[in-house]
Amino acid sequence: MDSASMGTTFSTIGIFAKHNDEGVTRTLHALTADLLGRGKRVLIDDSHSAADYGVIACPRSELGAASDMVVVVGGDGTLLDAGRAVAAHGVPLLGINLGRLGFMVDVLPDDMKTTFDDVFAGNYIAEARLMITARLKPAGDDLDTEGVLAINECVVRNQAFARVLDFDTYMNGDFISHHRADGMVIATPTGSTAYALSGGGPVMHPGMNALALVPICPHTLSDRPLIVDAHHEIEIHVAHTIEGGALYTSDGQVSQGLAAGDSVVVARAPYDLHLIHPPGYDYFNILRNKLHWGRGQQATGV
Amino acid sequence: MDSASMGTTFSTIGIFAKHNDEGVTRTLHALTADLLGRGKRVLIDDSHSAADYGVIACPRSELGAASDMVVVVGGDGTLLDAGRAVAAHGVPLLGINLGRLGFMVDVLPDDMKTTFDDVFAGNYIAEARLMITARLKPAGDDLDTEGVLAINECVVRNQAFARVLDFDTYMNGDFISHHRADGMVIATPTGSTAYALSGGGPVMHPGMNALALVPICPHTLSDRPLIVDAHHEIEIHVAHTIEGGALYTSDGQVSQGLAAGDSVVVARAPYDLHLIHPPGYDYFNILRNKLHWGRGQQATGV
Amino acid sequence: MDSASMGTTFSTIGIFAKHNDEGVTRTLHALTADLLGRGKRVLIDDSHSAADYGVIACPRSELGAASDMVVVVGGDGTLLDAGRAVAAHGVPLLGINLGRLGFMVDVLPDDMKTTFDDVFAGNYIAEARLMITARLKPAGDDLDTEGVLAINECVVRNQAFARVLDFDTYMNGDFISHHRADGMVIATPTGSTAYALSGGGPVMHPGMNALALVPICPHTLSDRPLIVDAHHEIEIHVAHTIEGGALYTSDGQVSQGLAAGDSVVVARAPYDLHLIHPPGYDYFNILRNKLHWGRGQQATGV
Amino acid sequence: MDSASMGTTFSTIGIFAKHNDEGVTRTLHALTADLLGRGKRVLIDDSHSAADYGVIACPRSELGAASDMVVVVGGDGTLLDAGRAVAAHGVPLLGINLGRLGFMVDVLPDDMKTTFDDVFAGNYIAEARLMITARLKPAGDDLDTEGVLAINECVVRNQAFARVLDFDTYMNGDFISHHRADGMVIATPTGSTAYALSGGGPVMHPGMNALALVPICPHTLSDRPLIVDAHHEIEIHVAHTIEGGALYTSDGQVSQGLAAGDSVVVARAPYDLHLIHPPGYDYFNILRNKLHWGRGQQATGV
Repeated sequence: MDSASMGTTFSTIGIFAKHNDEGVTRTLHALTADLLGRGKRVLIDDSHSAADYGVIACPRSELGAASDMVVVVGGDGTLLDAGRAVAAHGVPLLGINLGRLGFMVDVLPDDMKTTFDDVFAGNYIAEARLMITARLKPAGDDLDTEGVLAINECVVRNQAFARVLDFDTYMNGDFISHHRADGMVIATPTGSTAYALSGGGPVMHPGMNALALVPICPHTLSDRPLIVDAHHEIEIHVAHTIEGGALYTSDGQVSQGLAAGDSVVVARAPYDLHLIHPPGYDYFNILRNKLHWGRGQQATGV
Repeated sequence: MDSASMGTTFSTIGIFAKHNDEGVTRTLHALTADLLGRGKRVLIDDSHSAADYGVIACPRSELGAASDMVVVVGGDGTLLDAGRAVAAHGVPLLGINLGRLGFMVDVLPDDMKTTFDDVFAGNYIAEARLMITARLKPAGDDLDTEGVLAINECVVRNQAFARVLDFDTYMNGDFISHHRADGMVIATPTGSTAYALSGGGPVMHPGMNALALVPICPHTLSDRPLIVDAHHEIEIHVAHTIEGGALYTSDGQVSQGLAAGDSVVVARAPYDLHLIHPPGYDYFNILRNKLHWGRGQQATGV
Repeated sequence: MDSASMGTTFSTIGIFAKHNDEGVTRTLHALTADLLGRGKRVLIDDSHSAADYGVIACPRSELGAASDMVVVVGGDGTLLDAGRAVAAHGVPLLGINLGRLGFMVDVLPDDMKTTFDDVFAGNYIAEARLMITARLKPAGDDLDTEGVLAINECVVRNQAFARVLDFDTYMNGDFISHHRADGMVIATPTGSTAYALSGGGPVMHPGMNALALVPICPHTLSDRPLIVDAHHEIEIHVAHTIEGGALYTSDGQVSQGLAAGDSVVVARAPYDLHLIHPPGYDYFNILRNKLHWGRGQQATGV
Repeated sequence: MDSASMGTTFSTIGIFAKHNDEGVTRTLHALTADLLGRGKRVLIDDSHSAADYGVIACPRSELGAASDMVVVVGGDGTLLDAGRAVAAHGVPLLGINLGRLGFMVDVLPDDMKTTFDDVFAGNYIAEARLMITARLKPAGDDLDTEGVLAINECVVRNQAFARVLDFDTYMNGDFISHHRADGMVIATPTGSTAYALSGGGPVMHPGMNALALVPICPHTLSDRPLIVDAHHEIEIHVAHTIEGGALYTSDGQVSQGLAAGDSVVVARAPYDLHLIHPPGYDYFNILRNKLHWGRGQQATGV
């Protein structure tokens, strides 16, 4: 994370907002009024009615290319969607939550005006988060050229009705281990506070160039999370004995079924996710809040 | 566990054996020859050819009622199948493994003759293990009268493509908590060394009258395993907001999909699973072997 | 836990209160005034000035024998002290906290009057919690006849400067396992939400007749918590190879150093801890509050 | 880790060997005979009798400066001692175990000759492992200029008789969190398979430039291990409320008591530990062996 205070000009602002949420509409009215009042050109993703807000409609797929900055309105899940959609264009994202602090959507609606005053004056903290891509390598076939992007994690998991998955892991082609487990999470530092944490993985500081390999419900109790440098390529190879098949997901969205012999190859994406935080942004403060750290004697009866 | 040395007469012996395993055939030949040589009446489950072994064929569903003792040949998974099939008749099971010690199939093929000498002389250890039944309570409907039996555990889990399940738990109708997790395991002491252990649950001594409620990958990190008396009735109620549906399984076998509003009600089964162990049976010895306890410095680099 | 509504007469009330806490004095004034107003005979432990409150001074060691009920003012730690002091006399305890809910001190100062109205009308919930005693068996010597009482747990731990302790565990003389670890906690259900929980143990419902054996930082990663019936006797035997010695503690209070060859033998105490709860007492509600269960999406970034 | 095959000349070989172990003497005879036969100048640390082996005695403190390579004979603990003693001189270490594979002492006595054939022909794998130093900052005083070196970890822990330690953590002066716990481990990637693993930390690949902060038995259940870049400076500040004092240790050796207000400041050491591995060295293979990975169905009863 490095503090940026250059006089960047964010002329065109894209808006990417959560669907079907009553709080969104109110925040969108305030947001668009503020931005238009500042003389900005404002685009909104076409899942919302541009006319309602007096701004320009833009397909989600074109929002990244057309904007200088994307403002996300919603929760961290919305930011994940937005990030995957626009990150390839290098455009930075700023997240406004709907009243509940997220790990990445860290601006309260009430602080929107003050935050924009700062940000448009070049007073903000710019942060780059690594992303990963997962490419499928079907049994007996070549590696897919196109990968699926993930900000949090990619997961290979057994189908719900099969209790165990047999798979092997490799780092740059070197065999790591054979696993019997419900599945395996490969998480970025950003994703380390999401599903990987529920599975027993550690928190990784967002500045790390690292990936966490977190087995889900492993049969072997010493099959513990493994942290590796993010410049390594990780392969998960579904073994032949599998019953019921496996499923590969990216950031919690369904991507594809996997059969015995298939592999998923995960590597750092060629570009990062760029976030803009208000001045005073403090990762550990967010962590303490989200994980209820230090709030008295949580776990003891004494 | 209580040591039995009464002069029980096991006249009719049922055999329940694993399918499609080359080691089984050899063991079955030795087993049937031994039992016939002792003048026993021998039945075999009809997934195997009775004629090959010179014994009487019997449908699996009738083996419990027709036998004084059931000999299981296979792994712990085979014993689970056999146990659920015959336990209602109170007939005890003795497990012969295929060369690899199981938690419950604890007689090696080579020790078969000696074990039978002991067992038919009334020299054995009889043990009762509690089982559980799970009954479905569909949304807005009555509780199913018929439950599904489980020896290890029953599991309510999200479908593979849904990353989280929202559900509530109750004990005898008292609200325990709301959970966001991949699912919940309700394990017996027998099942505490199976899936529940992979999910972070403790080992429970098989003599305990207890159940373990083990959340799988819970979002709330303090949502830890809970141990309760087995005479309580536990309900898992799938909340309305669920996306994708849930699945209920018993001992790792598919039972049924669950929709929002459905509940699964788990209670101790009205009868136990009866096991027969050779004299000298030592639960902790099996545990040490299966969990590689005490085998030197497993987890340290010093 | 069983609901009691008999017309018990609690004529003499003992008070056992936390030291050196400014909130205590205010609560003690309100408490003694309330009890004297009801015509009760009121004793107070002699670490507080009886004259200040117009009640009778009583040594802590005699408070149990002299009272029909003991009211504890403080936190759960104060109740542990009070419980160990008076439990042998079978006198029940009621805990008034100082504004922060405890697991056992569950009456708020503001609810004191209402609670007494109920309790003295026989309208309360009586609950018995098992306790344990630990007896030392020095190397080559007999078992101590007198044991040390614990409500939460007894702990055998390495000295701070020795990184590992080698010890063996036994249940009723049967060998459980050899351990290399920082130590071992033997917790009651009451203690399952205290130190044992921090060490990775499960929550045990207070009604259980069970003990949890929780190894602290074990070298062998499969050396997991073990739950056994509380009628078993557990022995922890410090092995000969130890460097630096070990320490035995009861409810977090120092008891005694241990040398190689020494054992600690833990068994259920011959009497229980009796608690009185106001009507409406709900263990799971306390658990949810203390462990921050169900307070939104604690551990996920999505 | 990078493969080195340059024609390095290792002319003077220092030997650093375990004390008081019968296997050591036999290995030292074979080792010194082999090295002398190759025309090497051989030094041995003066805790062993140089005359017995026909080599030159050298104080441990001078072995690093005087040698081109140090051969360690013993376990990983011996290598830790040797590494801390010689690492400042940049001299590489090669570890010969006593028959039991270590994480770092990875040459079997029987493979010694072959390994030396390779190593002295320049055919080996050179690896650099980061180390850390811990400096004390007494309350109200300046930071010690001299730090204590650690290869595995530094630990701040409560004294055995105090059940909890209150402390704050900082990264480069930024507040991370307040903790109530038995203590905190700050582990290197090398140390991630040692004490930190027992405390719930992840395995970190040895090539990582990272530190793991692993709280020991934290009261707050969401107080989970945190992974940060090793170029950050970590401070552990013992809070004022502490009872009984704390202890700081480095690689499991006692260093110093800590009082309320004292801090320990941990940073990456200015030099690395250099290891020499035989060709074919495979970190994951060692990991699989040491952690019993993939050895069948460890944790399940099915």
